[in-house]
Amino acid sequence: MYHARIASLQARLAFEGGDAVLLSHLPDIRWACGFTGSNGMLLVRLQDAHFLTDGRYATQAHAEVQGAHCHISGPDLIGHATATGLFDNVHRVIFQADHLSFAALQSFQEKLPHVAWIPRSGWLNELKAVKDAAALKAIRQAQAISETVFEEVLALITPGISEQELAAEIVYRHLRRGAERMAFEPIVASGPNSALPHARPTKRRLRRGDVVVLDFGCYVDGYASDMTRTVVLGPVQDEVAHVYQCVAAAQEAALAKARAGISAAELDQAARAALKAAGLEKYFTHSLGHGVGLEVHEWPRIAAQNEAALPSGVVITIEPGVYLPERFGVRLEDLIVLTPEGYLNLTHVPKTLYVL
Amino acid sequence: MYHARIASLQARLAFEGGDAVLLSHLPDIRWACGFTGSNGMLLVRLQDAHFLTDGRYATQAHAEVQGAHCHISGPDLIGHATATGLFDNVHRVIFQADHLSFAALQSFQEKLPHVAWIPRSGWLNELKAVKDAAALKAIRQAQAISETVFEEVLALITPGISEQELAAEIVYRHLRRGAERMAFEPIVASGPNSALPHARPTKRRLRRGDVVVLDFGCYVDGYASDMTRTVVLGPVQDEVAHVYQCVAAAQEAALAKARAGISAAELDQAARAALKAAGLEKYFTHSLGHGVGLEVHEWPRIAAQNEAALPSGVVITIEPGVYLPERFGVRLEDLIVLTPEGYLNLTHVPKTLYVL
Repeated sequence: MYHARIASLQARLAFEGGDAVLLSHLPDIRWACGFTGSNGMLLVRLQDAHFLTDGRYATQAHAEVQGAHCHISGPDLIGHATATGLFDNVHRVIFQADHLSFAALQSFQEKLPHVAWIPRSGWLNELKAVKDAAALKAIRQAQAISETVFEEVLALITPGISEQELAAEIVYRHLRRGAERMAFEPIVASGPNSALPHARPTKRRLRRGDVVVLDFGCYVDGYASDMTRTVVLGPVQDEVAHVYQCVAAAQEAALAKARAGISAAELDQAARAALKAAGLEKYFTHSLGHGVGLEVHEWPRIAAQNEAALPSGVVITIEPGVYLPERFGVRLEDLIVLTPEGYLNLTHVPKTLYVL
Repeated sequence: MYHARIASLQARLAFEGGDAVLLSHLPDIRWACGFTGSNGMLLVRLQDAHFLTDGRYATQAHAEVQGAHCHISGPDLIGHATATGLFDNVHRVIFQADHLSFAALQSFQEKLPHVAWIPRSGWLNELKAVKDAAALKAIRQAQAISETVFEEVLALITPGISEQELAAEIVYRHLRRGAERMAFEPIVASGPNSALPHARPTKRRLRRGDVVVLDFGCYVDGYASDMTRTVVLGPVQDEVAHVYQCVAAAQEAALAKARAGISAAELDQAARAALKAAGLEKYFTHSLGHGVGLEVHEWPRIAAQNEAALPSGVVITIEPGVYLPERFGVRLEDLIVLTPEGYLNLTHVPKTLYVL
């Protein structure tokens, strides 16, 4: 697998007329050669590939890296690569302009004055977006943990528990079930806090009548899950039930169009049009979704500005939301993989409103 | 407080001959104006300061930001700043070269061709390193949570529990006690895994005789704690007890020298010299410590290469370790604040070897 990925990078490199590409973004390095540690660089040349890391990761690098030669260096990886001759006869190097600091680039330029550094952003986006069977398996496993945890914590959503306490339970149960780590800090937003799309858990204690937005995910084998459900600590107000149905319909409208070849803009538009029919579109204040893989937020953005056709095998979220300021909010998020015929929904938790 | 911090940046800016400094690193923005969200920029000009964020953080920004004018923008913060005229008559802008991607800099240059962009790395290091009373209070609170959790989980360190299960307990108990989030994924490294300084928790179950390294910390009010203790699931081998005493002596040797004005190199050297007397210095494979504040790893590195005098009020870790490959490792980490007379130890857990 990793040999094929390195080969795909080399083909692209040849097409663009570069002598080498230097990967510095760890999820991309993991995708290309399998290394899971927290420091490393991958230099893919036209004829071979070289992975560099520091001494802390010597054992791990030799066990994990495939498709590239391993080099164990001191803290100065580029200095080591230079001294080892890896940049001899390498004159045009593509680098990850969106994932390399200006200061790091400067230090590379000083060490390798003969190299022309060619900035590229999102160079691996399309390659990484299409998930193979192993990636899908990991995402399904991560999603399965998140859904089990969701079902478990439903029983804890009772008057008196705080958002922070619920968040702690969500994290704990993910880790106990084998998640490597959370994909992000869980969102537990209750009552008026649910009207904030990016709320952080507070000390607020749940009360009867609260809307509660739960948004979380975890990593398994490096791949992320992501899901959002909105529940109500009954009794449920009519307006809450109405908004919930509108958000569910907006999600359904987008899912009905989901298939390989459609654009993100069309999906976003489908959800927005459904909300417009209910006069709620102005309360849908974020984009519809995002790609999910080795990063929980990765290319492509599922947004109105993104007109490119989505490829078969891409994993994305579909997560419309309606936020009525200082009152309540509702968001529903499913994780799907696009196929030529439509999509597979990786989320299996029902979307009927849970009134607890 | 924030007004004084902005003023200190303006004084430095005037000294360096810039018209403005653009902060893009979120912990630095938090330090300078109090904003705790995940997207923002702070433009400090000679005469005033302007904070920009997107619509998701409108309420939060107005509640939190002090010392700067708030601007709520779309996703293109720099475009908004340009359109608002914030860069009119601003020709020389210092930017955070170590915290801005090359791609972001390019987009700034395109939008603001009249500006000379001046790269600076670590521009706020010295300012941020010296902790005021509020910062020390938050660090002490975070450290108090971590120590309580350490004492609680001692009871769980029994044969049969896995590293991952222990790590889940550590995270859960931090969050339940009010930590905002963990400072990093906890290290729980048992048996031969303890010989890996950066081990991640595995499914390995603890056995009698295991050495267990526990390294964790959390954030409270934005500030981090960090601590490491090494315990033994008895019986304890003589060699383990010996190495433990040597590491404790190395830490004590560094602490004995700790005071404002000493260099990191001298502290590192003191610990290494103590280990050398026992023939163990070659197994101390990382640097002695690091600064702790709004980031759990921040300037200064406490390492052999760092010869500069450490200021009064800096918070650093002192964490020597000895790692015998494929056998076991021992690390002890205390968090201290340097004073003119010596230091205050913010870590109160005893350093006698816990045999469980």
